[in-house]
Amino acid sequence: MAIKDGDFVRVNFTGKIKENDEVFDTTYDEIAQEAEIFDENKTYKPIPIVVGGNHLLPAIEKEIVGLEAGERKTVEVDSDNGFGPRDPKAIQLIPMKEFKKQGMTPYPGMRIQAEGGEGRILTVNGGRVKVDFNHPLAGKDLIYDVEVTEIIEDNEEKIKSMIELHYSNPNVDLEKTEISIEDGVVDIQLDEMAKFDQQSYMDITFARFRIAKDIWENIEEVTKVNFVDAFEKREESDDEEDEE
Amino acid sequence: MAIKDGDFVRVNFTGKIKENDEVFDTTYDEIAQEAEIFDENKTYKPIPIVVGGNHLLPAIEKEIVGLEAGERKTVEVDSDNGFGPRDPKAIQLIPMKEFKKQGMTPYPGMRIQAEGGEGRILTVNGGRVKVDFNHPLAGKDLIYDVEVTEIIEDNEEKIKSMIELHYSNPNVDLEKTEISIEDGVVDIQLDEMAKFDQQSYMDITFARFRIAKDIWENIEEVTKVNFVDAFEKREESDDEEDEE
Repeated sequence: MAIKDGDFVRVNFTGKIKENDEVFDTTYDEIAQEAEIFDENKTYKPIPIVVGGNHLLPAIEKEIVGLEAGERKTVEVDSDNGFGPRDPKAIQLIPMKEFKKQGMTPYPGMRIQAEGGEGRILTVNGGRVKVDFNHPLAGKDLIYDVEVTEIIEDNEEKIKSMIELHYSNPNVDLEKTEISIEDGVVDIQLDEMAKFDQQSYMDITFARFRIAKDIWENIEEVTKVNFVDAFEKREESDDEEDEE
Repeated sequence: MAIKDGDFVRVNFTGKIKENDEVFDTTYDEIAQEAEIFDENKTYKPIPIVVGGNHLLPAIEKEIVGLEAGERKTVEVDSDNGFGPRDPKAIQLIPMKEFKKQGMTPYPGMRIQAEGGEGRILTVNGGRVKVDFNHPLAGKDLIYDVEVTEIIEDNEEKIKSMIELHYSNPNVDLEKTEISIEDGVVDIQLDEMAKFDQQSYMDITFARFRIAKDIWENIEEVTKVNFVDAFEKREESDDEEDEE
């Protein structure tokens, strides 16, 4: 069945800069290696999204509507629908002494973190350093190759896919998530290991909110999402086994 | 009714060193001020404990058994039942240069953090600093004045008292805790603000485990404690509904 807004799907994609075919992002292992952007902390496999959920650029999600599972499509995204135009005001001259203060030796191409966000040094000229705070893809027209690998039909699998998208943690086994849906209320109990996450509770709350929002906006009749952390009294026989 | 093991009670207490009547801990505001140990981050009021739950020194909890609400008792705790004997091996000589490395100027009475725990500097002698890593109350006989202010009878209040003991957070209003008990399962939903705690999830898990354990060990038939974080879809306003 053709994909419509609000569908949960898994997609592979490769994003390239139109003018020079440079690959800047991909879900394919081999393509990442070829383009020398392979990141060993990343898992290369199709990512789950809700179509129209702003998980990819809206211009791409719009083009996924109407496709079938297994279909591929090449989508051109001009800079206005991509990462916006380049802003000349986002190029700033910073006195060399600001870098010296922090013990840094700036060079062209160096990436720095500053109040204005992440910047890339363009030139170093005597006492002045020219830094570009534009998004690296600002002003670029882009081409995305998109492949829909799966349409997720089952509600439990839809919920799991949003956990995968918003809360990935190498220590947490997604298969151990327990999900129940009853009277519009979703109860989610994650793998026991999730309890030992060292992230701040607030950051986890933000991830949970994103999961909950994608669920209630896109799964019929859901109005409430509970994250449940259970603590259970051990059976006495278990204790005895431990003592052995 | 006389207090027995497993009862949830609130107590005030003041702990003094027997040999010199020095107050080292108290739940009374005025006594803390008088003894010059007042801590403005602390709330001075009766603390909730389970009798026999190891929330106070066992030697004190034992003496609370048999008291009635409102009763006071003076309890002597010798060092063996208090903070243990002084260990001469816990007094160490540390070369002055170790302090210099860290830009510290040691002086007698100074408290330091080291691998061996917290220590107190006894003497500074040329190149050598004598540090005592014993607990400040090790080897001391103690006297506690204890007052039972309340016996907690209601199960919901018992649960709230353990949250108060193990998870106090100035931003979280304990009165906003929602508790349900059904078929041996306790569901706890804390004040919304608890979601924005900046502590690590793991530290919160440890506090929750302590709460859960005190509950299932001391409230009949409870075998499971769930901490529930709910995320609810906001009601759409009438205007928005009309637009659909």
